[in-house]
Amino acid sequence: MQSIREAHERIRDKIHRTPVMTSDVLDAMAGSRLHFKCENLQKVGAFKARGATNAVFLLTDEEAAKGVVTHSSGNHAAALARAASLRGIPAYIVMPENSPLAKQAAVRRYGGDIVLCEPTLAARESAARAVMERTGAAFIHPYDDLRVMAGQGTTAIELLEQVPELDVILCPVGGGGQLSGIAVAAKSLKSSLRVIGVEPAGADDAARSFKAGRIIPMLEPRTIADGLKTSLGGKPFAEIIRLVDDIVTVSEDSIIQAMRRILEVMKLLVEPSGAVGYAAILESRVTAPAANIGIILSGGNLDLNRLPWQ
Amino acid sequence: MQSIREAHERIRDKIHRTPVMTSDVLDAMAGSRLHFKCENLQKVGAFKARGATNAVFLLTDEEAAKGVVTHSSGNHAAALARAASLRGIPAYIVMPENSPLAKQAAVRRYGGDIVLCEPTLAARESAARAVMERTGAAFIHPYDDLRVMAGQGTTAIELLEQVPELDVILCPVGGGGQLSGIAVAAKSLKSSLRVIGVEPAGADDAARSFKAGRIIPMLEPRTIADGLKTSLGGKPFAEIIRLVDDIVTVSEDSIIQAMRRILEVMKLLVEPSGAVGYAAILESRVTAPAANIGIILSGGNLDLNRLPWQ
Repeated sequence: MQSIREAHERIRDKIHRTPVMTSDVLDAMAGSRLHFKCENLQKVGAFKARGATNAVFLLTDEEAAKGVVTHSSGNHAAALARAASLRGIPAYIVMPENSPLAKQAAVRRYGGDIVLCEPTLAARESAARAVMERTGAAFIHPYDDLRVMAGQGTTAIELLEQVPELDVILCPVGGGGQLSGIAVAAKSLKSSLRVIGVEPAGADDAARSFKAGRIIPMLEPRTIADGLKTSLGGKPFAEIIRLVDDIVTVSEDSIIQAMRRILEVMKLLVEPSGAVGYAAILESRVTAPAANIGIILSGGNLDLNRLPWQ
Repeated sequence: MQSIREAHERIRDKIHRTPVMTSDVLDAMAGSRLHFKCENLQKVGAFKARGATNAVFLLTDEEAAKGVVTHSSGNHAAALARAASLRGIPAYIVMPENSPLAKQAAVRRYGGDIVLCEPTLAARESAARAVMERTGAAFIHPYDDLRVMAGQGTTAIELLEQVPELDVILCPVGGGGQLSGIAVAAKSLKSSLRVIGVEPAGADDAARSFKAGRIIPMLEPRTIADGLKTSLGGKPFAEIIRLVDDIVTVSEDSIIQAMRRILEVMKLLVEPSGAVGYAAILESRVTAPAANIGIILSGGNLDLNRLPWQ
């Protein structure tokens, strides 16, 4: 918890304190009071800005001078590029050569130096290693990193300041960086609070790992929620198994319906990964009548030419 | 101005004080500091909640008991139904029989009593008159009504509290209720502020009327911006000609591009009518480098099955 508090001090003037939004219409449908934490309105359009910024600003000047490196085709890539540019250091972003041009453009907009590689995990890892050997850059993993986890946990500090009466938090789980950080902060600040992870049924490694008590990797994830396809990291899992109350799964249909309803009623664009929390409400996976439920809308980056209900 | 201040006191606990959002990305593209006033996040998804609520709560108890009536197929219909339900009185909403089911559903959700009629202005007016004769309900015009104009003007009070350094306000203009209310409030609070109306080139009656100094009705409007197809009302025009600095027009392509970019970058859903202010920025219709520009995102209600870039 101490490292999360320090992370918040470190990054608070470099990120948005995102708003919490509510909707009488959605509350009436749900029979609960829903508090949407809008990380889709965060810098770079996703919560990843928090962890990447914390990790970059924790480096010593000597380490930082050599730059940072990661492999990611998603929001962490843009978040790391932005954090590095804030510190005025190079960011080397290893991306598969088939990653969408929009994602590459986002990285370049923040001054990131893209290193393309074949679209396999082995190729990504070896490309990142090559960059590290060549430049001495520090590797910043998207989620299996205590600095990143601490940064993601800052969301819970804000959310509990904004909605002290919260009873439950619903948080997406992919690699587990966000869920673990939020669980540590939330349980420390309010021990009665229930923290529930949500993931697509087609990428349910976290739910199965949680039940089994050991990491069961996801071999063939099938979901439109890109950001949740990754398997749980070891460091996040250690906190999740200790602190999280439950992990529930949701269907693809519910994810799409959740995205659509949040857009239609709340006028907010949320990517599939960011909509799973509300999808769990639609599927009545959380039975807590009249409770105050916090829902993390974790990101809002998606291709408007391919909205999933088209 | 006094009536706008009183309107704000009257309605402030019945509407949202909508947030003002900014984007470094859009600012860099525009070369100005843009302040988006998010009336798409207003109750019923549009600024119309302000004027309708003010009009309904200005009625005497005796008048109110007989209910209110209007003809509208748009946001004013839902806004009047909601305002009436807040006061616990009937709302009769005359709608053309071909109006979208989603619009009808929105009115019913707020308890409005829908009276369907043929889709002509004559049929709408005669249906509304019949309701008034039968029930004694008070007619609340969507824009040609001083109570409604005063309610819409409350947006400017909030915006200038939120962004005192504002130099320019860009406001959509259809019937003129919002533009006139905002012009009165903004000029009264900060006389140096420039107020500019924006409308589609395919429904440019306000621009032509403004130049001619007299109302030139719009006979065949052609635009996706439904809410801006109406001709200027006489009461709004009297204020607009006196106070507004300019009225500019934008193309359909710019409106679509503006909607899309606001959604992509800011994650906010805006209807075509609500996007014309930013479309004017895209077309460089407002040349005010480095100025602080307020942009009214007036509403966010549209059919997600028919997004215009599909």
